Amino acid sequence: MSTSSKYVLAFDIYGTLLDTSKVGGDLASTFALEEERAADISALWRRYQLEYTWRLNSMNKYEPFDVVTKKALTHALSESGIKFLEEDVEKLMISYNSLQWCEMFCGRRQHELTIHHASKSSFPDVVEMLQDLKALKEIDVVVFSNAVQKYKPAPEVYHGLVEAVGKAGNAQDVFLVSGNPFDVTGALASGFRAIWVDRGKKGWIDQLGGQAPTVIVHGLDQLKQYVEKTLLW
Amino acid sequence: MSTSSKYVLAFDIYGTLLDTSKVGGDLASTFALEEERAADISALWRRYQLEYTWRLNSMNKYEPFDVVTKKALTHALSESGIKFLEEDVEKLMISYNSLQWCEMFCGRRQHELTIHHASKSSFPDVVEMLQDLKALKEIDVVVFSNAVQKYKPAPEVYHGLVEAVGKAGNAQDVFLVSGNPFDVTGALASGFRAIWVDRGKKGWIDQLGGQAPTVIVHGLDQLKQYVEKTLLW
Repeated sequence: MSTSSKYVLAFDIYGTLLDTSKVGGDLASTFALEEERAADISALWRRYQLEYTWRLNSMNKYEPFDVVTKKALTHALSESGIKFLEEDVEKLMISYNSLQWCEMFCGRRQHELTIHHASKSSFPDVVEMLQDLKALKEIDVVVFSNAVQKYKPAPEVYHGLVEAVGKAGNAQDVFLVSGNPFDVTGALASGFRAIWVDRGKKGWIDQLGGQAPTVIVHGLDQLKQYVEKTLLW
Repeated sequence: MSTSSKYVLAFDIYGTLLDTSKVGGDLASTFALEEERAADISALWRRYQLEYTWRLNSMNKYEPFDVVTKKALTHALSESGIKFLEEDVEKLMISYNSLQWCEMFCGRRQHELTIHHASKSSFPDVVEMLQDLKALKEIDVVVFSNAVQKYKPAPEVYHGLVEAVGKAGNAQDVFLVSGNPFDVTGALASGFRAIWVDRGKKGWIDQLGGQAPTVIVHGLDQLKQYVEKTLLW
């Protein structure tokens, strides 16, 4: 696909459009845990999920994202001393697969702006949701990292996206929108501009790469303002 | 260098020979923190140190280990809401550079066994300590990852080690000794055998790679028994 739009917005999925912190509730009900303990295990799950993707990148290996997510869950539960059955894991994987959307970016697609999703997902339900959005003309392209067998922040993923949206040689016209600092840093290193969604309002503290995000917003509603005021000005 | 020994023991440094958990005491005294809080920040420091090395690998970039370690400290302190001066960071970097050795592997070098250290270090004092050990004929070779501009678990690091000890084509004769599960998994994926030092006695819960360690010991004293009873039998 090529695009005649001046700018492209590329949305990360997990941790940006989908709220990965919401699985704590399902962990709490499955194992009868206090809310705080469940939130800790949920954070550990997410941490091992990312750790595994980076270790796979380092080892020049690839496993699909649902496999990585399930292994990370098993790791987090074992490390936390939780006794679990295979059916508990399956149930939690289904709830992960039905994560809630974060506050949505409400603007319809604009003439001068196309909206893309960039994610590491290979989950069937998420693919389906995204295809629905695509059918609604809310997005043009869905890019999955299994095409390049690498996870972000590998440059192959960002380069693949630039190619897919017809912006080869013009990566600076692509704005990654992500809540994940490692993703922002990776996109900047690949020549993108990057909008960091800092929902926790903690400010930019990541030290890798030496570049701060192009723009920091505190939610996707603020992103809409930025896009309307600056990019479409 | 080539070796006539049947087996090679390759020791990881940080988290295996050097006790990275001991910096908590220095954090506590520098910032007047409770012991538990300092231990949490110390763990966060180590976590970002590893995260940064894997993200650099993913991005095909390299920064020296002391630079990564300092950035990770800054990140951990900022995230923990600690106000710090540049001189606090410098002081803590000096203490990191003087980490205590874990319980030592006491056996002298054996006829049929050479002992090697494999690490990501580029710290001058650690290099000096290792050169001292080398002068004492306790070790033959020190391998640093800055030679290949990659961090473990990148296969380049393990392959570089195999070459350096004259075991090209015979990686299975090299035993990595490491307290870090990601390192054990990386070595196994490169055809090594791997001895995991499970000081916490939590058992093997890492899910990546599908291979368990060749041997699990709970300290370097047990390693000595394993080497004497099995490898030198």
